Amino acid sequence: MSTESLIDVPLIDHHCHGVAPHDQQWEEFEDGLSEAFAPAPEGTTHWDKPIGLSIRGRCAPVLDLEKFCTPEAYMERRLDLGADEVNRRFMRASGLEAVLIDSGNNPERLLDVPGMAEVSDCAAHEVVRLESIAEAVASKGSSAAGFADDFDAALRLAATNAVGLKSILAYRATLVVELTPPSGAEVAAAAGRWLAEVEKTGTARITDPVLERYLVWTGIELARERGFPIQFHIGVGDPDITLNRCDPSHLTPFFIATEPLGVNFTLLHCYPFHREAGLLSENFPHVYFDVGFVLNWVGPSYARILGEALELVPFTKQLYSSDAYAHAELYYLGALRFRMALKSHLDRWIHEDECTAADADRIVEFISRQNSRRIYPLPGASA
Amino acid sequence: MSTESLIDVPLIDHHCHGVAPHDQQWEEFEDGLSEAFAPAPEGTTHWDKPIGLSIRGRCAPVLDLEKFCTPEAYMERRLDLGADEVNRRFMRASGLEAVLIDSGNNPERLLDVPGMAEVSDCAAHEVVRLESIAEAVASKGSSAAGFADDFDAALRLAATNAVGLKSILAYRATLVVELTPPSGAEVAAAAGRWLAEVEKTGTARITDPVLERYLVWTGIELARERGFPIQFHIGVGDPDITLNRCDPSHLTPFFIATEPLGVNFTLLHCYPFHREAGLLSENFPHVYFDVGFVLNWVGPSYARILGEALELVPFTKQLYSSDAYAHAELYYLGALRFRMALKSHLDRWIHEDECTAADADRIVEFISRQNSRRIYPLPGASA
Amino acid sequence: MSTESLIDVPLIDHHCHGVAPHDQQWEEFEDGLSEAFAPAPEGTTHWDKPIGLSIRGRCAPVLDLEKFCTPEAYMERRLDLGADEVNRRFMRASGLEAVLIDSGNNPERLLDVPGMAEVSDCAAHEVVRLESIAEAVASKGSSAAGFADDFDAALRLAATNAVGLKSILAYRATLVVELTPPSGAEVAAAAGRWLAEVEKTGTARITDPVLERYLVWTGIELARERGFPIQFHIGVGDPDITLNRCDPSHLTPFFIATEPLGVNFTLLHCYPFHREAGLLSENFPHVYFDVGFVLNWVGPSYARILGEALELVPFTKQLYSSDAYAHAELYYLGALRFRMALKSHLDRWIHEDECTAADADRIVEFISRQNSRRIYPLPGASA
Repeated sequence: MSTESLIDVPLIDHHCHGVAPHDQQWEEFEDGLSEAFAPAPEGTTHWDKPIGLSIRGRCAPVLDLEKFCTPEAYMERRLDLGADEVNRRFMRASGLEAVLIDSGNNPERLLDVPGMAEVSDCAAHEVVRLESIAEAVASKGSSAAGFADDFDAALRLAATNAVGLKSILAYRATLVVELTPPSGAEVAAAAGRWLAEVEKTGTARITDPVLERYLVWTGIELARERGFPIQFHIGVGDPDITLNRCDPSHLTPFFIATEPLGVNFTLLHCYPFHREAGLLSENFPHVYFDVGFVLNWVGPSYARILGEALELVPFTKQLYSSDAYAHAELYYLGALRFRMALKSHLDRWIHEDECTAADADRIVEFISRQNSRRIYPLPGASA
Repeated sequence: MSTESLIDVPLIDHHCHGVAPHDQQWEEFEDGLSEAFAPAPEGTTHWDKPIGLSIRGRCAPVLDLEKFCTPEAYMERRLDLGADEVNRRFMRASGLEAVLIDSGNNPERLLDVPGMAEVSDCAAHEVVRLESIAEAVASKGSSAAGFADDFDAALRLAATNAVGLKSILAYRATLVVELTPPSGAEVAAAAGRWLAEVEKTGTARITDPVLERYLVWTGIELARERGFPIQFHIGVGDPDITLNRCDPSHLTPFFIATEPLGVNFTLLHCYPFHREAGLLSENFPHVYFDVGFVLNWVGPSYARILGEALELVPFTKQLYSSDAYAHAELYYLGALRFRMALKSHLDRWIHEDECTAADADRIVEFISRQNSRRIYPLPGASA
Repeated sequence: MSTESLIDVPLIDHHCHGVAPHDQQWEEFEDGLSEAFAPAPEGTTHWDKPIGLSIRGRCAPVLDLEKFCTPEAYMERRLDLGADEVNRRFMRASGLEAVLIDSGNNPERLLDVPGMAEVSDCAAHEVVRLESIAEAVASKGSSAAGFADDFDAALRLAATNAVGLKSILAYRATLVVELTPPSGAEVAAAAGRWLAEVEKTGTARITDPVLERYLVWTGIELARERGFPIQFHIGVGDPDITLNRCDPSHLTPFFIATEPLGVNFTLLHCYPFHREAGLLSENFPHVYFDVGFVLNWVGPSYARILGEALELVPFTKQLYSSDAYAHAELYYLGALRFRMALKSHLDRWIHEDECTAADADRIVEFISRQNSRRIYPLPGASA
C-alpha cells in the first residue's frame, strides 16, 4: 500500500469473482455500483452513494486523477486507459497473496482464474458454485433417476482444480429450509419435476428445497474428501434476497449436525447479521465468517462494520473477502477498507492498552490470511 | 438554528402529527414521553429517559430557562407561557420548509393542517391514513357488498388535498401477511364479518388481513393516479407492536411485485431494522426510508443511529422525519438531532477525506428535503 | 476500584453463577473461555479471543503479573496462588454490593450462595432456576397426575430463601412458544409423556412446551406472592441456542398478558437483540434488561454494546449483571467493563452538554444497583 500508511500483510481474498476484461461504458459501469436490478430513480444516479464517494476519492488517484473528480472525468480516464491497464493497476495495488474466485456467476463476461492470476500478479484459485453445476447438468439434459449421479460426477469434474465450494441456498430455497440430506427417492422425484420444467421453459434455475439439500450434502461429501470448506451466501445481496430468510442462525441445527464431519463452513458478507455470524463462529469450531463485501459498499462507514464483526468472534475465525465483481475498483477498495478498518480498531486497542503491538500483528495475520490458509487447501500454503 | 452552528437547510418533515393546542398538565405531558400505555413504575418517572435529558438540556433555553432545569421548573414555565406560545417558539425554531401531517391519529386533540402551517410558519400538507378512513366508513355504516366501493370513495374524498397515504399494517395484520390484492369476493366476505363485529361492539378497529390487503392495494391505485408515495410504519412503536413481525424485509415480495407500478413507498422509523430498510432502499428504486422518530428518543445516542442509517443506502433514498406528536418539543428536537447527527458524520467524512465539502452539502440537501420534494407531489416544489 | 479511576458505586450483580472453588488446569480453564462445546480448531486456542486479551491485559496485574503476560505464565501463577486466593482477589476487587446467584447450572462444581458471600465479602442471594427444579422432581420420581403439585411444592421449598426465579425457556421450547397457561389436563398429559421418557433414558431434560408454559406460570404465581422478578435467558448463549428463536420480541404477547399481574421480568444478556430488549423495557413497565455477559466477552468492544443498550431504554429499567460462571476473572471483568463503558458514555454526555454531572451520577446509581434494589426483595435494601 504505497499511498497509505497501512497494514501491509498480503491478503487472501477468499471470496471474489472475476474482473470484467472489456471496457465498460457509463451505463454498464453505473449498474455495477448498485445491487438493484433497475436504474437509479429518474433524476438520480448510482454515483450518489457511499461507494461513489469511495471511487471518486480513493480510486481516482490510482488512475492519475485528482481526488474527487467528477464521475464523468473518472469514466473518461477509465476508457482512455483501457480495461486491461485499469484492472492491472487496481489489482496490483490491492496487495493480495491470493484470490479465490467464485466461478459460477456470469463467468462468460469475466476473467477466468488464470486470467485473474495474471492481472493480479498473485495466486488464483477456483471455488465452484453448487447451483451453477446443477443448472448446467439440467441444461445439458439429465433424468429423474440419473440426476443425482450426473450432478455428483459433474461436480467432481468441475472441482478438479478447486479449493472450495459455494452455496447460494440463501437466494433459492433460503436458509429457512430444514437442511438435512434427502433420500434418493425424494431427489429423483424432485429432479423429475425440475427437469420437466427446464425442458418446458428452456431455463434452468434451481430453487427446489429437496434438490438444494441434495446439492449441499453432495458438496459435503466431496468437501470431506478434498478438504474443502463450503461457503454460504448470508444476508445482504440483491433484490432476490429476503433478508429475514437469510439470517445465518437458521442454520444452527445444520451446524450442530455437521460439527462432527470435519468440514468447515464460511459465512459470506452476513450484514446485517454479522453479529449472528460472529456468534455462530464462536459457538462452532467449523464455522467461519467475513463481512468483506460490506466494507466496500458502505464507504465512509467501514470502521463500524468491522468493529461489530470483531466483537465476539475468536480472531482465528474471521476471514477477509471483497466479494468484488467485474469492477477492479472493488477489489482495491475491499482491501483498502479492510486494512483501514482493522488498523483503526487495533490502533485504538493498543492506545487504550487493550492489546500489545505484537497481539495486533497476530490478529492482522489471522484475519488477513492465516485463517484462510488453515481452512482452504491452498497449494504451497501452510498456516 | 440560532443557538447552534449547524446545517441550516430548511427541512421537510415528511412524517409527523399535529401539536397539541391545549395546555398539558404534568401527567399528560409525562405520558407523552413514553410509548408505554402505562405510567412509569412506582418511584420512577418518564423524565428519567434520554428524551427527558434532551428536553431539560436542549429545550429549556427555548423557553428562557436555564439548561438542565428540573422537570418541575420546566412544566411550570411551559404552563406560564401557554401552549400557543410554546408551540410557536419550538415550531419556528425548527427550521422547517414543510410538515407532512398524518391526520389519522387522534386528530380531535391536535392542531389540523392549516393550524400547523400557521403555528410553524411553513407549508403543511396532509397524509391520509388508510386505516382511519376504513374505520370511519365502518363506523358510519356500510355493507359487506358495498364496503369496497364505500372505502374507495371515502379515501378519494379524504385525499382531495393530500400529498400521500399511510399504512399502519405493521400494527394490525403485521408485515408477515402476504400482501397481494384480494379478490372482490374475499373483501366482501371479510367486510361482512368485520362490519358485524363493529355493530356488535360499537368499536371499529381494522385488523383483518384481507381488508388490510384491500386497503393497501386501493391506496396503490389512488397513489398511481395522484403521484402519492405510501408510507409504512416499520419497527419501533408502542406495546401494540411485535417487533419481529415489523421487520421491513417481510415486504420484499411486495416490493418485487410493486416495482413496475410507479408508486414509491417510504419506510418510517425502522429502528432496530434501519439497516434492513437501508438495504431495501438500495435494492428497490421505489423504496425510501427514514429513522426520524428514533433520533428524538435516543437523545445523546443520536449520532450512532444516523450513522447506521447512512451505511448502505444511496444518499438519494433517505428522508427526514420527526414523527413528532402533540409535544412541540419533539418537532424541534427531531430537527436538531437530525442536523447534529448529519453534521457530525459529514464533518468527519470531510476531515478524513471521504468527501468534499460540496459533496457534503449535496448530501444534506438530498436527505433534508430534495428526496421528499422528488417523491411527494408538493405544490410549487421542484426537486 | 483502586487501579482505575472509575465509577465506584458498589454494584448489584443481579445474574451470575458461583465461582469454581477448585484449581483449574489448562484445558478446563481454556474451555471456560468459550461458549463452544468443542475445543478450538487444531492449531488455535480459545485464548485468541477478545476475552483472552482482557484476561492477559486486565486480570494479570490482579495476580501480580505483568500486563499481557503469556497465557502459560498466567495459568502458572493462577495455580501457584491457588483457586481460593485467586477467587478472593478477583471477587473483592469487583466492588460488589451483592451477587444474585443462579443456583441451577452445575451447582456441584461451584461455590454455593454462602460460599459466594464469604469469598466476595458482599451479600449473596439465590435465584432459583425453574427447569432445574422440574428436572429434579422428574428424577426423583413423580406421576402424570401429581407432577403439577410436586413441582409447585418443590419450587416453593427451593425458593424459601430466594430473591427471584429464572427461566431458560430460550434454550428449550424457545421463545417462539405461545406462552399462555396450560390446562391441568394438558400438564398431566405432557408430564406423563416426559416422565416415561425420563424413566426410559435415565435423563431428565425438560423441553416440552406445555411443561415449560406450566413452569413459567407456576413461577408467576410464586413471584406474585413473594415479590420476585422472573429472569429470562435471551439471545447469545452456547450452541444449543437458535438465535432467531430467542429474540425477546417473541414475548410481546406474553408481556401484554402479564402487565396487570404485578410481576417484573428481566431479560438477560440479550445480544444481539439488546435493542429489542431496550424497546420492550421502554414499552412495558414490568420489563427490565441487561447486557452484562456480553461486556465481558467482547473485550475491547465493550463501549459499543453498552452504548446501544443505553439508546432507548429509561435509565430506570436497565440492570447490571456479569453472568460470570466459574472463573473469578469474569466477575471482575464484568464489573470493570461495565464501569469503563458507563463512564465512557457519561463522560461524553457531560462533555457534550447532554447531561449534568449530577444526572450522570443518578444514572450510574440507577443501573448499578437502584433498579435491582427496586425489583428484587433484597433483605435490608431500599431503593
